[in-house]
Amino acid sequence: MIQTSLLPEDALPRGFRFAAVKAGLKPSGKTDFAVAVVDQPASAAAMFTSNRVKAAPLIVDARHLERSGGWVRVVAVNAGNANCATGEIGLVACERVCAAAAKIFGAQGREVFPSSTGIIGVPLPDEKLVGVLPEVQRTLASDAAHFSDFARAIMTTDTRPKVAHAWIDTGGAKVRLAGACKGAGMIHPQLVPHATMLVYLFTDAAITPADLETLLRGAVEPSFNRISVDGDTSTNDTVLLLASGASGATIDANHPAFRMALADVCLSLAKQIVADAEGVTHVVELQIEGAGSDADALRVAKAIAHSPLVKTAWAGSDPNWGRLMAATGYSGAKIDPDRISIWFGEQQICENGGRVADFDEQRAHAYLKGPEFTVRIALGMGDGRCRFWTSDLTAEYVRINADYST
Amino acid sequence: MIQTSLLPEDALPRGFRFAAVKAGLKPSGKTDFAVAVVDQPASAAAMFTSNRVKAAPLIVDARHLERSGGWVRVVAVNAGNANCATGEIGLVACERVCAAAAKIFGAQGREVFPSSTGIIGVPLPDEKLVGVLPEVQRTLASDAAHFSDFARAIMTTDTRPKVAHAWIDTGGAKVRLAGACKGAGMIHPQLVPHATMLVYLFTDAAITPADLETLLRGAVEPSFNRISVDGDTSTNDTVLLLASGASGATIDANHPAFRMALADVCLSLAKQIVADAEGVTHVVELQIEGAGSDADALRVAKAIAHSPLVKTAWAGSDPNWGRLMAATGYSGAKIDPDRISIWFGEQQICENGGRVADFDEQRAHAYLKGPEFTVRIALGMGDGRCRFWTSDLTAEYVRINADYST
Repeated sequence: MIQTSLLPEDALPRGFRFAAVKAGLKPSGKTDFAVAVVDQPASAAAMFTSNRVKAAPLIVDARHLERSGGWVRVVAVNAGNANCATGEIGLVACERVCAAAAKIFGAQGREVFPSSTGIIGVPLPDEKLVGVLPEVQRTLASDAAHFSDFARAIMTTDTRPKVAHAWIDTGGAKVRLAGACKGAGMIHPQLVPHATMLVYLFTDAAITPADLETLLRGAVEPSFNRISVDGDTSTNDTVLLLASGASGATIDANHPAFRMALADVCLSLAKQIVADAEGVTHVVELQIEGAGSDADALRVAKAIAHSPLVKTAWAGSDPNWGRLMAATGYSGAKIDPDRISIWFGEQQICENGGRVADFDEQRAHAYLKGPEFTVRIALGMGDGRCRFWTSDLTAEYVRINADYST
Repeated sequence: MIQTSLLPEDALPRGFRFAAVKAGLKPSGKTDFAVAVVDQPASAAAMFTSNRVKAAPLIVDARHLERSGGWVRVVAVNAGNANCATGEIGLVACERVCAAAAKIFGAQGREVFPSSTGIIGVPLPDEKLVGVLPEVQRTLASDAAHFSDFARAIMTTDTRPKVAHAWIDTGGAKVRLAGACKGAGMIHPQLVPHATMLVYLFTDAAITPADLETLLRGAVEPSFNRISVDGDTSTNDTVLLLASGASGATIDANHPAFRMALADVCLSLAKQIVADAEGVTHVVELQIEGAGSDADALRVAKAIAHSPLVKTAWAGSDPNWGRLMAATGYSGAKIDPDRISIWFGEQQICENGGRVADFDEQRAHAYLKGPEFTVRIALGMGDGRCRFWTSDLTAEYVRINADYST
């Protein structure tokens, strides 16, 4: 599995065409409308944010997938406006875009999967999106460059497009899998079977909608649901997996090689989001082990990943492990402080709740200067464990999000 | 009730003497050991952090209060070291300080109430504290200046001492109440009947330990348990209320005037902590109403108070109310997005989940430029409500907490 913003030509799943145009929603004037079209209906599985405030396109998506039975012809994604907290007019605006896209691409309205990302609470200028659909139709193409354009148009505060791909040999047919995603802030996806993280996964395997759903759920939990930039679970988070069947190979929910390929692509994309987090200077992998349960391990990981004091210490490469102890203590997980051990990479810092006798602060500080590091915490309570990826909290994060010019 | 870092001379509760000296624990060389002594045992009630990792002095305090039946002679507070995650040697170091203080002030060890605040995970240099006890004894005095010294010595990243006082007339005797506290970061006190917020409350009323406990619990919930700077619940948070009885007036748990005076002093101190939050530029009062329950109102308040995106928007005076919607949506409270209304001060921003028709962004931006503002959210679900105070998240907060010099 290879990470690059441009896929090798042969890596693009068959059956999909991509385009990205400028609809005028981004103040920067960059491309902001990304469309993917499948010539034959692709089976589809999607997961959406667990936030109780959901953007209009997520409501429309759920409705369309239910009506179509899980089949999609068109994916239409705008950046620059989240179409969230826009009430009834937001839903109407979204359906207008879907109807216009359906008409131009010869599909049913229910076969259109819309997504939006950007500012919340501002009406979507749907006429701008509808107005550029003819340009979208003229530009659609099934090559790596257009896929890269798609990945770039969905960006907001991202500094780079994020794509990943994999392929498997099914013994006859080659099955391709490629994904594109965006997200840098408001990142703490808590996807339920229904994330402003947007993830689009494409494969040319033939997979039933039910099997696709099972495959997607299995892949999302250890990847997108295990990352956080700021703990702010978005109103627009969406992961969509489409299967065109164009490879000729049929895959079911238990296909080990496909499951592994899908897991790899999802984890790559999830880590790319953390690596491009707003203002990030350090990417941290948390390894929590010895918890009373996997759920308790996740509680500890999230408390640490969301602690401003821990995250600012990381920004300063400060081996202030006491802040890790404090966050572990208020995580809600069942713990015994006297059984806690902590490592920074290979260096043990804390043993049974106290500083190790030979604590080498300079060595710890040097390790934490790296752009990526690992923090491992053993709780000594049981067999529960998790891995979780997060970023530090820097003055640049504050600048990006406090920057308000009038 | 008046806020000032220096109490009027007559405001100091009778029966207490105060001192602050330099023990050499603060790298700055400032006073770092604060002591209060009562000549006759004072009834005592205390509440401690709910963090499962608790500093050594909190464990010792609970033990001492249990053994003494709720009576205290000496309060000994050091800044510069939290004596937390220090294991058995932390407990031993704490008890050594208590034993030495008991000896010099003619008290029992169990009548000493120790507290610590500062870095976690570094052994407490108890010999430094013991070494300056004779100087403490020489300096003790019952005047406003020494009370102010006490309040200053317990500071860590605080920029100013925080005190408040009140008095009531019981019809014969004047009863005085004064409090001092510290705290600017790692502030999200979740006190249970047992914060690195430290709060010391003194009164010269005569109150039984049981009644004092009832009074303290009632006063802490709507004050210290309703503030957050960074959501990091400390390992050392402590609130102590001592009653010397020196006024000659006896107060019980139901005394309305005393309860109100105590509530006022606690709320004043709690708000002073938020106003001195690390890097703060805006103090925000959240008013959540119409929730399905008070607990749901508190969930919404905490989600908002802990959202980096909301707090950074406040730092930029950005009327980005969509972030408030997002945080409300993931708070865990039962909500209906279409019933949510939001006001900045007197200006309504959102009605029934959507932007008001006459939204005046410039007016909202101007209001949010003030050093203090109010955000009111009506959920339309029921009668649940709460008030909560918090701060913005600034680049200065990051600088303070990421600043690691080796």
